[in-house]
Order: sequence, then structure tokens, then C-alpha cells
Amino acid sequence: MEYKQLSGREFPRFSGIKTFFRLPHVQSNSDYEIGIVGVPFDGGTSYRPGARFGPSAIRNISSLGRGFHWGREKHIFESAKVADIGDCSTVPISLEKTHKKIEEFFSPLVKDDKKFIAVGGDNSITLPILRALSKTRKQKLNIIHFDAHFDTYPAAWDCEYHHGTFLRNAIEEGLVDPKNTVQIGMRGPFVDYKDAEYSKKNKITVFNMDDIRKKSIQEFVKKLPKFDKGLTYICFDIDCLDPAYAPGTGTPVPGGLTTYETQQILRALKIKNLAGCDLVEVSPAYDHADLTTLAAMDTIFEMLGLMV
Amino acid sequence: MEYKQLSGREFPRFSGIKTFFRLPHVQSNSDYEIGIVGVPFDGGTSYRPGARFGPSAIRNISSLGRGFHWGREKHIFESAKVADIGDCSTVPISLEKTHKKIEEFFSPLVKDDKKFIAVGGDNSITLPILRALSKTRKQKLNIIHFDAHFDTYPAAWDCEYHHGTFLRNAIEEGLVDPKNTVQIGMRGPFVDYKDAEYSKKNKITVFNMDDIRKKSIQEFVKKLPKFDKGLTYICFDIDCLDPAYAPGTGTPVPGGLTTYETQQILRALKIKNLAGCDLVEVSPAYDHADLTTLAAMDTIFEMLGLMV
Amino acid sequence: MEYKQLSGREFPRFSGIKTFFRLPHVQSNSDYEIGIVGVPFDGGTSYRPGARFGPSAIRNISSLGRGFHWGREKHIFESAKVADIGDCSTVPISLEKTHKKIEEFFSPLVKDDKKFIAVGGDNSITLPILRALSKTRKQKLNIIHFDAHFDTYPAAWDCEYHHGTFLRNAIEEGLVDPKNTVQIGMRGPFVDYKDAEYSKKNKITVFNMDDIRKKSIQEFVKKLPKFDKGLTYICFDIDCLDPAYAPGTGTPVPGGLTTYETQQILRALKIKNLAGCDLVEVSPAYDHADLTTLAAMDTIFEMLGLMV
Amino acid sequence: MEYKQLSGREFPRFSGIKTFFRLPHVQSNSDYEIGIVGVPFDGGTSYRPGARFGPSAIRNISSLGRGFHWGREKHIFESAKVADIGDCSTVPISLEKTHKKIEEFFSPLVKDDKKFIAVGGDNSITLPILRALSKTRKQKLNIIHFDAHFDTYPAAWDCEYHHGTFLRNAIEEGLVDPKNTVQIGMRGPFVDYKDAEYSKKNKITVFNMDDIRKKSIQEFVKKLPKFDKGLTYICFDIDCLDPAYAPGTGTPVPGGLTTYETQQILRALKIKNLAGCDLVEVSPAYDHADLTTLAAMDTIFEMLGLMV
Amino acid sequence: MEYKQLSGREFPRFSGIKTFFRLPHVQSNSDYEIGIVGVPFDGGTSYRPGARFGPSAIRNISSLGRGFHWGREKHIFESAKVADIGDCSTVPISLEKTHKKIEEFFSPLVKDDKKFIAVGGDNSITLPILRALSKTRKQKLNIIHFDAHFDTYPAAWDCEYHHGTFLRNAIEEGLVDPKNTVQIGMRGPFVDYKDAEYSKKNKITVFNMDDIRKKSIQEFVKKLPKFDKGLTYICFDIDCLDPAYAPGTGTPVPGGLTTYETQQILRALKIKNLAGCDLVEVSPAYDHADLTTLAAMDTIFEMLGLMV
Amino acid sequence: MEYKQLSGREFPRFSGIKTFFRLPHVQSNSDYEIGIVGVPFDGGTSYRPGARFGPSAIRNISSLGRGFHWGREKHIFESAKVADIGDCSTVPISLEKTHKKIEEFFSPLVKDDKKFIAVGGDNSITLPILRALSKTRKQKLNIIHFDAHFDTYPAAWDCEYHHGTFLRNAIEEGLVDPKNTVQIGMRGPFVDYKDAEYSKKNKITVFNMDDIRKKSIQEFVKKLPKFDKGLTYICFDIDCLDPAYAPGTGTPVPGGLTTYETQQILRALKIKNLAGCDLVEVSPAYDHADLTTLAAMDTIFEMLGLMV
Repeated sequence: MEYKQLSGREFPRFSGIKTFFRLPHVQSNSDYEIGIVGVPFDGGTSYRPGARFGPSAIRNISSLGRGFHWGREKHIFESAKVADIGDCSTVPISLEKTHKKIEEFFSPLVKDDKKFIAVGGDNSITLPILRALSKTRKQKLNIIHFDAHFDTYPAAWDCEYHHGTFLRNAIEEGLVDPKNTVQIGMRGPFVDYKDAEYSKKNKITVFNMDDIRKKSIQEFVKKLPKFDKGLTYICFDIDCLDPAYAPGTGTPVPGGLTTYETQQILRALKIKNLAGCDLVEVSPAYDHADLTTLAAMDTIFEMLGLMV
Repeated sequence: MEYKQLSGREFPRFSGIKTFFRLPHVQSNSDYEIGIVGVPFDGGTSYRPGARFGPSAIRNISSLGRGFHWGREKHIFESAKVADIGDCSTVPISLEKTHKKIEEFFSPLVKDDKKFIAVGGDNSITLPILRALSKTRKQKLNIIHFDAHFDTYPAAWDCEYHHGTFLRNAIEEGLVDPKNTVQIGMRGPFVDYKDAEYSKKNKITVFNMDDIRKKSIQEFVKKLPKFDKGLTYICFDIDCLDPAYAPGTGTPVPGGLTTYETQQILRALKIKNLAGCDLVEVSPAYDHADLTTLAAMDTIFEMLGLMV
Repeated sequence: MEYKQLSGREFPRFSGIKTFFRLPHVQSNSDYEIGIVGVPFDGGTSYRPGARFGPSAIRNISSLGRGFHWGREKHIFESAKVADIGDCSTVPISLEKTHKKIEEFFSPLVKDDKKFIAVGGDNSITLPILRALSKTRKQKLNIIHFDAHFDTYPAAWDCEYHHGTFLRNAIEEGLVDPKNTVQIGMRGPFVDYKDAEYSKKNKITVFNMDDIRKKSIQEFVKKLPKFDKGLTYICFDIDCLDPAYAPGTGTPVPGGLTTYETQQILRALKIKNLAGCDLVEVSPAYDHADLTTLAAMDTIFEMLGLMV
Repeated sequence: MEYKQLSGREFPRFSGIKTFFRLPHVQSNSDYEIGIVGVPFDGGTSYRPGARFGPSAIRNISSLGRGFHWGREKHIFESAKVADIGDCSTVPISLEKTHKKIEEFFSPLVKDDKKFIAVGGDNSITLPILRALSKTRKQKLNIIHFDAHFDTYPAAWDCEYHHGTFLRNAIEEGLVDPKNTVQIGMRGPFVDYKDAEYSKKNKITVFNMDDIRKKSIQEFVKKLPKFDKGLTYICFDIDCLDPAYAPGTGTPVPGGLTTYETQQILRALKIKNLAGCDLVEVSPAYDHADLTTLAAMDTIFEMLGLMV
Repeated sequence: MEYKQLSGREFPRFSGIKTFFRLPHVQSNSDYEIGIVGVPFDGGTSYRPGARFGPSAIRNISSLGRGFHWGREKHIFESAKVADIGDCSTVPISLEKTHKKIEEFFSPLVKDDKKFIAVGGDNSITLPILRALSKTRKQKLNIIHFDAHFDTYPAAWDCEYHHGTFLRNAIEEGLVDPKNTVQIGMRGPFVDYKDAEYSKKNKITVFNMDDIRKKSIQEFVKKLPKFDKGLTYICFDIDCLDPAYAPGTGTPVPGGLTTYETQQILRALKIKNLAGCDLVEVSPAYDHADLTTLAAMDTIFEMLGLMV
Repeated sequence: MEYKQLSGREFPRFSGIKTFFRLPHVQSNSDYEIGIVGVPFDGGTSYRPGARFGPSAIRNISSLGRGFHWGREKHIFESAKVADIGDCSTVPISLEKTHKKIEEFFSPLVKDDKKFIAVGGDNSITLPILRALSKTRKQKLNIIHFDAHFDTYPAAWDCEYHHGTFLRNAIEEGLVDPKNTVQIGMRGPFVDYKDAEYSKKNKITVFNMDDIRKKSIQEFVKKLPKFDKGLTYICFDIDCLDPAYAPGTGTPVPGGLTTYETQQILRALKIKNLAGCDLVEVSPAYDHADLTTLAAMDTIFEMLGLMV
């Protein structure tokens, strides 16, 4: 099978069935190399819901997504077999059932050595993906985590799992190596600083907004650690971006990154084995003129650049 | 305590702390007669979420709510002690925990003989309210149900309870007397007609859109049964209204009621003992210029008219 | 001078300098017969402001306004010299100064026997127009008043004049004959019923929503009184329409008229001498897809139909 | 192949690749009976463009589309093989090239005796479809035309074909039998009445808004002619609906139909051989909360009801 | 009384009665230390109105406001008694009456040594607050003024006071010491440069956008003067921010500050005695996805950081 | 004739007939020096249309446009006779006919030595303007081109001319000297890199986003070439700006310029003979709170600063 984008010459970019980047929609056990997959679930959200519509909205706008990467000087979709493998089945009203379904969906992918980019959905979808990855590969993962929040928050409302806990859960479950974990974009205020302290205590490398902007972005990216060992995973919560760049999200925080900055960081990363990525917390009902979905599409394209 | 609206002469209607109808915010065990209470939960939603913001948005617009009812020729808030009793505590990510909290919140109210109007939230909040009412009062309830959907849908995704099942659940749990239940505003299409058949089989009186519009609305309201026995409850899903009148809702269906029609129906109802009401499925992120919240406020005002 | 619309054949309707109905913009003392004039002032507003942008937004959409009236079987702009005479100068932060400017602007027009349609602005602009008309013509006016509200409200905040008082002010100042005054579209709720009682006490003919919808609209319009004596003025507050048809307004009230109904009423009116009209309370910041400005343009077109 | 909707039990309605009504996406020469096809072109538009995004937006919302038709008491998608056959290839910047592509796309479908519903796109797409139908079938068509406008407008800007001319073009090309043509929803104002006169002169049956609302909608539908001979085609311009019900369109006209009324009319039509339909002029950039796309989806569902 | 935020554990952040930062709503003469108070008035506005809805919209979004300040390493609401003291009574249609009410509201607060943050409302509300502060304390104030405009504009329309004059008025009334006044964020174009010259002539320290961006923001903040003497007041007009960061304002000017920059500046200020602050010109009708209200909330939080 | 702006003292900025910068609307052969002219055409657009409404929307917001330029320390409209010369006639459904009309409109202007700023419309309008300029002046032009895209794209859909080809067309037609052409704001991704290579091959000076942000903007502007010979033309596609600053455009690309940066670049340009400019691709249906039109107005003001 050929994994080519639908041509804008035959079907202008506003037309056609909407798949990620106009790529073929195939079954998850097909012969692609990198699968982009929707995980439409927002049942872990504490403020604005709506990320369940993230995959659909990002598919729509990604018709604008061209394939040639200027910085890398290569055509992404000619360099690897990339496919839209549809959506993971979810249960909108049960986090437990959905987590189970997510783990079951991703485990065979991992076993098949497929790389993937999971498009959320809220950040609670990350945990079962990490379980699938870590348990199947039987190793702890390196994490590169873009976010405004630490996601090391304690349980809330007697619920161990919600959209602000994945990293704490993953560390406690032994899925992730905190010493090979980097957090980028953090900023306050906090409820009580316990989440920030958790990261510190676990020796996670944290780059908050002041760390990033102390000097120029070109200087900052030189400080990024190299991920030349083990399996690496990127979790990209769209709210690492400033609300001006990504209004359509659940818990926006002023003072965040620009899309130019996240592009620079993503292009500068050195990762030997990038097993998977996610892009979460796009809530289209709060978006305008596709600002947020464009940023999401652009980020997914950079992730593909890191994978091929 | 005086239960008076904040005066527009001292604080213009765009100002002041926002409570329902600018009424005093009191504890749920105060000496009011009718409590308006938010139940901000949308974890039972199958399509567009966001009804968790319903109570807040309806409080905001209800500053426009005047107190004198023209048809009834009386000032509602001078005829009864009406209060904003705040929000019921909820757990955004767990329907089970929230249902328990709702039942615990409403049971003492019912025991205290308070009347109430619950402002959702999605339609899944109705079931635990009915439990509190029926179990505390130890009787089956009459239901007047405004909706585009039957809400007698089967379990989905192995989940017995969601925002389309309250009436079936309530009948099966023995909380409701289907023969004294009326459904108003129903319209297709359906997934498979099983929900419509459930209502028929249980001898619920159904008025679909064609029944309502066969003749004039003045003629239609004459057909409404009287509720002169037992305890009655009104469940008003805002999607009984046409999307043109209530765009801000989760599962809109074209061909619905106008606000003038729901006013006429609500004004024509004869109910001896109206124990409680709910107004559900307002999803403000999809609203525009407060169309939907205005319709919600107006409906709550008519419910108050039925209670005083 | 020729008073012709800019042709859509030379300049498609999205192009060109925006004037009312693409008519020539002339000085107020030119030789037109009917002048359409903006009165951009919203300093009398009690809730949502923004009607100051009404004239500009209605000019924009009125590029869609064609000239041939089907019901009257004539081309309006070939039947009379109609012009855009620009905006009346206003002071956004002073109702007193603006009222003075409005009266000074309209008095010479009236003296010159110009007919006019004033495009607001909020409803507080009506009073100084009535002063100009009544004082210059030295007679009391008949009023046809479309509104959700009575506008016979008492003074508020020690301010005698605001956007809810024009009719009371005009009656008290002897500008208007209440017995030849009709109010159409009224609906509750009220603050305290005093405004409704004022109309009753002054023997104004009131058609509330129930009066209008008792039977069909065709039957209703037969009940409209004839205005075959004296000078008549139409005040059309866009909030007579239901919020679904006119969301962009300051104090919307559910349960209102449809545009089809207002068309039918305006077409059925029999008026011998229609001296002037206003169209007020369009607040574009709350409009969507030009719904409200379209309704406003359509109403102005019907007013022109009554004048030519 | 099975032509079943994607199940909401496995993939909640916000998830999955978006096709019309969650039906399978197949090639246009597959063994379906009724094909729903996008024709994304708006190069014939005179005011607001954007109908090029119509097919994509209607696919999105049609995930809400259930299959059981209450009035007809049957499940549409179990009664016929219905498929999404993708989009017709178009050239966004050339009406001529696009018209040619449309005719080439539909001619083989017609030859294969497929029924179809074409989802526009602006109303200029209708003409090449009629060419394909009439030329292939070698007969003149009956037309049922829902619209606010006559679409018998003369050439403009030296362009014979634009989105207001299809019916005149089709009659002049001998594709359509005007005596078996019905126009529903017409209303003024007009540029110069020539379009209305064209319909009259050609003996087209015209039902304007006053004709429709003279009595009740139940009475009106009795006046509809029967289409028991020849081949019939329905053209449904969404602007036949009032802007309150369909804001997202190019040239809205106040005073139009409600969705309830169009449902009643579509359900009452008696058509022996309905060869094809189109649904045009949905411009999503001007829509809100999917009001217009919901109305479009609902209309397509009624068209399917007429076909099965 | 305990001045604690409503817990997100009992009431998720979308629920509950909306007060600033979920703080207790108390009377203005209670025992709090810092009062946050709404001043909902926009009658001084020259372009887009709507700031009357500022306090209500900021209360809503401030439910997202956490209490622990990362840079200052302290929990703001555990470091001082902060309360929502409701809204100052205003008269929407009279600037004079409102100014009087504002001065009367703030004077006793100042006498009681309360600190406060006034949430506007348009910038005309600043003058009567300065009068209350300066007259009660009998001293001239230092002003730190964030704005795109100088607000030293002359009288307009024969009105001495409007939303662009407060600083000139305050200097002329002897309330402010221009030599201890700093203006930050200024940018052109101007009507006639007189406002810029006024600041220069009065020896106000002006940092325009070029001054701020000549080097890095870290370098810029070193140039800020210290306010170690006298009483200081911060006036923060949200339009100092670029429209991309604060679209919801009355007179936006491109080329402005980012929220990161205003955070850095506010964190770098050294102020011995910060008597009061205001945050003005948030016009929610022009906001999107709470971008502007989030920026406002964030700024108020930084002001609190300067006060505790 | 006096070319003065309508005074905000007589007509507040929300009032009056909307022309560019409130300047007089005159015929294109009047005695002005610089004409601002709308070219409302979007028939060359490949994705989001709507730029046909650009001139109208920019006229509206430009009422906010003051005349004194801070950096240049002069009042633009007192330094040259600037006028609104209306719109160029266009044919919305034919690129060919429109290109002909554009060339015919601009040729006499150029012959008369008028300077002009053309307000689009999509970028396809640039080519016929360049034809008018180059052919009338009989010389090749220097081009300063702000854009996210190269606009050296090949023909598409067998159409030689569309909104992504003007620069290639102009070079091939010998209208432009590529060696004196600068492109600013370019960024990927690309379809296939051919457009970037075209620029390289033709020795166009390209400053992509990384070139611009390598150091500070103050450092970057020093690298701009001087245009001290020949005739220069500026083409400013609003999508050179980041979508956060200009959401209302047809083909947005993340990672773009800020308005502050484009101001700095425009102020730093040294151009001896700036014959004309255009500002294209503003699509108001996708704008919010006038962000994009404000940026457009601001850019036009800087262009005027370069011309006077």
C-alpha cells in the first residue's frame, strides 16, 4: 500500500474525507510505520471539557498540512509510511473503562514495533499509553513533557486518576524514569506547590518559563539534555502554549510559550528512539479560527520530523 | 431573613455577585420555601459536553430576571421565599460519586419539605434527585418531561446510567409512575425505536411535535392531563426547544418547540403538588448571545409560577 | 441628483463604500424626500451596551437590500428619492448633550417636510426626535410602538431619561396622544407592573404576545387600528422580535415575534401620514451572522414601503 | 459489502473518521444504491462565500444522525444501501472547469442507475448535475426547488452562469420541464422583479411564504402537486429556511421557513421516481453551534426517506 | 472570619457562586486586609463599550485562580486576608453620578487603611478612586500606569472627564505627583501628539514599547524606578497588552506587551506602600475563550503579590 | 479639496460613513496624492475564502486610526493628500475578468503619478497591479514581499494564476527584478519545496523566520537592503503575521511574525521611490475582535509613513 497524502491538485484542501494530513485511513494492524491515532476522551477534565472533539478538529485542519520539512530538508511522508489509523474506542462516561480500552489498543501496536502519535483527548489518556509502552517493552521510559502544569497533582475527589496526575501515576507505577524526564513550559500559580515539589523530589529536570526565556530561544535549546539511551516518549499538552496561541484548551495559563518557541525546541531535540508521542488537551469549542488546531497540527508535524 | 432580589436601582443588572435571579445565597438548611440549586455535572454526556457550566451561566443572565408574572398577575418573589442555595457538590470525573452526592444533597431538602428547582448539568442528574424525592416521600412520582429524546434509552458502553436513561432507570427502580408521566416535545430520528417503544409499552402519555402542532398551541394545551393527585416533578431538557431557540445544548434536534410554546404549556399546566423541577442540558460553550440561558431562565421563572 | 442604488453589476454587493441600501450619501439639506440617518448613541442603556455600532452594522448588511417590494409591487427607490444622510452627531458620554444634538438635527428636517428613518442607537434617542417632530409640527403624534417592553418605566438612579422611558416622557411632555398610540409585542415579566399599568391608565392600545397569537397572524392584523388622521410615528425596538431572530440587542426577552410576523404587521398598517420612524436597540457585538442587522434592514425596507 | 453506520456503541458519536451519517466511504462505482457526495465549490457566489466547506461540516455533524425515521416507521439505512462516495473533484478558482468535472462525475452514476444526494457547494453546482441527469436519461426533469430566491436571474458581470441562474439555464437548455417545476419558500425583495416574472412566464408553480402560511402547514402540504410521472429532482437551497434556523448561508433573507415546516413539506411529497437531490449553500464560517449543518443533515435524512 | 478560597475539592472550579478568586464575599467594612471590588461602569468610553461586564466576567474566570505564587514562594491568600467586597454601586447612564458614588465608596475604605484592587469598568473610574485616596490620605500619589495610551488627553465633546483623561485630571487636581509617575506600554499613533507632550512637559517617566524592547525584558526591568517613598497606586489598563493577548478591550492598539512581559515587570517592581490598584478596560463582549479575563486575573494576582 | 480625517470631536469614531481612516471618499481622478483603494476579490483562494470582505472590514476599523506617527514625528494626513478612492470594480466569479478590470483601474492612476495602497482581496490581485505599474512605467519593479508563503507556486488545476503564484508570474512576465526582490516571513512546511527553490534560483533575497529571529529584531532590520534605485512595490500578505496576531486569513501558518516585528521592519525600510503597496488576504469571517483588521490598518499606516 502507498502511504501518500491525498493530492491538493485533485481534491482542493477543503475537500475530501478528513484524515490526519490527508493520509490513508488504515486498520491499526496494517503495514504503516507511524500511525496517527485519535483518542477522543475528556472524562478526566477538571475545568473546560471538550477535548473529545480534538481528533476530529485536528483531522479537519490538517488538510492544510504540507509534507516537506524545511529545516530537515526532507519530505516527511516520503521518508516513512505514515497513516491515519482511526480512533481508539472510548467510553465517554467512564475513565476506568476508557483507560482499559486505551491500553488494549496500544499494546499490540507496541508489540508490532509501530511508532505512533496519539491525538487526545485530555491528558488522562497518557497514562494507559505509557502502561502499554512500558509493560510491553519491559522498560522505563524517558519522558519529554511540554505543559503549563506539572501533572504530578495528588488524587482529587477520591479519584486517583484525572487529567493532572499522569506523571505522578506513571512514576509511582514504575513506568517512567524521572531522572530521564524533562518538563518544559511550567508556570504558576499553584494550588499548594505540592506538584512542583513532587517533580523536584523525584529529580525531574524542569524548565519553567523563566528558565526558557532567560536568554534567547537559540541559547535555551542548547541546554536540552540528549535522549540517546532507552525509549523516549513525548507528551505535549497544548496548554504549554500561551492562551494567545492556543485558546482552545481546558485549563489555560497566561505567560506561556509561542509556537515559534515550541518549533525551535522540538527541532533541537536529539532523541535516539522515540517510541511514541501524544498531543493532548485541544478543546475545539473554545478555539477560534483554528488557532489551536493549527498549533496542534504543526506540533504533530514536528513530532513526525523527530521520528523519521 | 428577607428573600428579596438585589435592586436594579442600587446595583444595575450587570453588576453584583451573580446568584439566581439576584436572590440571596443561603445555606441549604435555611428558612426559604423554594431553593434554586446548581448541579454542575456533565459526565453523563454522549456528544457535546459543557453542561457543567450551566448553573454559572444561568446565574449570570438571570440578573435580567424580573419578578412580576404578567399571566399570573403576581410578584413571584413576594409570594414565596425563594433563595439561591448554591451548588450541589459534584465529582466531574465520576458519575457514580456524583449521583451519590446528589441524592445526599436533596434528601434532607425533601425531608424539610423544601421545594426546589435543580439547574443542571446534564440529564443524568435527574435520576438521583428522583431517588431522593421518591424514597424520602415513599411514593411514586408523576413526571412531566420536556425533551427531544425519550431518555428511556438502554445502557450503553456497559454503563447502566447516562444522560439518556433517567426515565427508564426511574421506572425500573419504581420511583416513577409511568401512567402519570407525560412526555412533551419528542421527535425523531431514533437509533432503533426501542426508546419510543419503551414509552409506549409503559403507557406513558407522549406528545410529539406533530401532536403539539396539529392545531394551535391554545388547542394543544387543553389536552394536557391534570396532575391533581400525588407528587409531581418536572424535568425540562432544554433540547425540547428547537436549536434556533436553544443552540447551547449537547444533542440538538431540529424541528423543536419555540419558547412561546413552552411558556404556553407551562402556564397551562394544572399541578396540585409540584415537589421539584429540573432544567438540564444547557451547554454554554455552544450558546450565543445568551439565547439558551435566557430560555432557561424564562423556564425556571415559569416553574416558580407553578410552585407559588 | 439621482437617488439610485449603487449597482451590483458594477460593484458586487460586498464592495463599495457602505451607505444604507447603497444609496447616495448626501447632506441633510439636499433634495431627497426620505432620509435614512444614523443616531449612534447607547448612553441610555441599562444592560448590554453597543447600539452605538448599530448604524454602521446596518449600513454594512444593507448592501444586500434589493429595491423591489413584492407585496406592494413597486420599486421603492424608483418611487421616492431616498438618501443616506449620514449620522447625527452625538456625545457618547452624555445623554443630555446628545438629546440636544438630536433635536437640533431633526427639527430642520421636519421643517423642510423631509420624511426620515432614524437608525439607533438605543431607545433613548426616540424622545428628542419626538420633540423635534411634535414641536415643529405643533401637534401631538400617533405612535406605533413595537417593543418587548412598555418604555413607560419610571426614572431610575435619579435619571429621568433612559432607554426605558421615552413613551412616558413623551406623553408627559404632551408630544404624543396616548389614545392614538398602539404598543405591539409586549411581554413579561416586569419589575413591578407599574409600566404596564401606565399604558393601561393612559388608554394606550396594547397588543401583547397572547393578543397577537390568539389566532393566526392574518386574523391579528385585521385588528390593527387605522391611522388616517394626524401625524404618525413608528418606533421599532428590535427586541420586539424573539431573541432567536434578533440576538444582537440589549435587553432580550424570550417569547417574541418572528420576522415574518413583523413583516405582516408592517404590511397591513394603514397610515395616512407617516412622518418618521426609528429602528433602535441593535447591538452588533451580540449579533451573529448578521441575523439582527438583516432583520433591521428588512424592517427599514418595510417602513420605506409605508412611506412611498 | 455491508452499508451500515458506524456504531455509537463502539465509537461514540464524537469519534471516528467523519463520513456522511457514519456510513462507509466507498468508490463511486461500488454497489451502493444511494450515494451521498460532496461537491465543494463556491466560485459562483455573489455575497458571502464559504460553501466550499459545506460537505466537510455536514459530514462532521451528521455523526449525530440516527437511522430510524419515525414518520415512515422504518430504518433508512436498513432499507437501502446508502454510502458516502466522497467528494467530486473541483477547481476552486474556475466555475467552467468545475462544471465540467461535475457533469463528468455524475453522468456515470446516472448511467449506473444510482440515486444520489449532492451536498454543495453553492447553487451553481446544480446545473451540471441536471445536465448529467437529463442528457444521460434523455428526458426533461421535474424540479422541486426550495429557496428564498428564484434562481432565474439573468447573467451578471457578463457571466452566464452563477449561483442565481441554475433554473433559468436549465430551462433554456431544455433540461427541465417548467410546468412540472415547483418553487417553495420564495420571498422578496427583488432587484427588479425579472426573476419572479421569468417563473410566472414559464408557468412554474410558485409557493411563496404567504402561500405557505395562509393557513396551517398541514393545510398547505395538501396543495403540493404529485410527481407521479417522469424523473424528479429536488434542489434544496438552505436559504429557504429563515436565517434564525440557518444563519450559515451566503445570501440570507428574513421571513423564511422553519425546519419543522420543511420537514412537513418533505414528508408530504409524493414522488414516484426521485432520481437525485442536492442540498446547497451551507456556509459554515457563518454558522453557529451547527444550527445550519443540523438543518442540512435533517433535510438530507428526509430526502433519503423519499428515496427508500 | 477565615478568608480562604472555596476548595476545588468540594466544589470543582466550574461550580459555586462566583466571587473573585473564590474568596468570601463580605461587606466593605469587614475585617479583611485587601478588598477586591468591582466598579462596573463604561459610560466614559469613546469606542467599544462593554467594560461594565468586566467585574462579572473576571469573577467567573478567576475560579481558575490558584493561590501559591511561584516567584514569591508564598501562598497569597494565606499571607493576607483577601476578600471580594462586591461591587461599587454605579449609575450606567451618568458619569457624574457614578464618579460621586465611587469616591464615596472608596473614601471610607482608605480611612480604614484597607488596601484594595478595583476591577473596572473603563479607565474613567480611576479618577474618583484617586480623589478618595489622595484627599483622605492628604498626599500626592505615585502612579505606575500601564496603558497603550497616555490618558492625558484633552476634554472632548465639551466633557472634561472621559476614559482618556484620568491622568491629566489627576495631575491638574493635585492628586498625583507626575515626577513619581511612570507610564509603561505607550505606543502610537496619536491624534495630535498633545497627550504625549503633556506627559513630557510634566516630567512623567515614559517607557514606550521601543524602550521596553530595546534589550531583553530582564534588562528592561532593571530600569524601573523604585517606589520607596509615599503612597503608590497602580493603574493597569488591559490595552497595554497586545490585542493578541487581550482582544476584549475598548480601544486596542497593535504592537503591545505580552502577558509574560507584564508579569516580569510587575514582579520586578519595588514598592514600599502600595495603597491601591485598578485593572480596567476589559470588555468581555469582544473577548474570546477568556483570553482577556485570564490576563486580567493574572495581573490582579501579581498585584496581590505586590501587596502582601 | 481638503483631505482631512473626519473629526472624532464631531463624529465619535463609531459613527459616520466608513472610509479608510475617515478620509474623504473621492473619485480616482481627483487631486489626491496617495489613494487607498479596495480590491475586493477572493476568487483566487485555495482554502478559506472571504477576503472579498477585506476592504469593507478594514474601512470599518480604520475609524480608530489616528494620524500622528510617533516614530516619524509627523502627522501623516497633514503631510500628504491621502484619500479613499473607493473600490476597484471586480467580478466575483471570474479571475480573468477581474484581473483585466484591476489593470484598467490602476493604469491611469500610475500614469497620473498617483501613489496608492491597494487593500485586498486575496493575493491574486497583486499581479494585475504589477502589470499596470511596470507596463505604464516601462520598468521592472523592486518588490518587498511579506508573506508566510513564497507565492512562486506552479500552476494548479490547469490554472496559471491563483493566489499563490503572483511572484512567479510577475518574474516570468518581466515585471519584477528578482535580484531587487526581498521576501520576509517565509516558513515551512511546503508541498514539495519547488516554490522555495524558485526563489533561490532567481536570486531573490529571502529572510525566513529563523533569519529574522536569529538575533534581536533591532539587529535584523540592519540587514535589510536599501531600495534607493528604481521603483519599489510592497506586497504585504497578512499571513506573514502569526495566526495569533492575524487569525482572519485564508491559509494561516504557525510560527509567524508579531505586529511589533512588522512595525519595526516597515519603519526601518529605506525606499527612495515607493510607487505602490498592497495589503492582502484579510478574511474577516475568520477574524475575532478585529485583531486582523487592526493589524492591517496598522500596516497601511506604516506604508503611508514610508510614502510621505
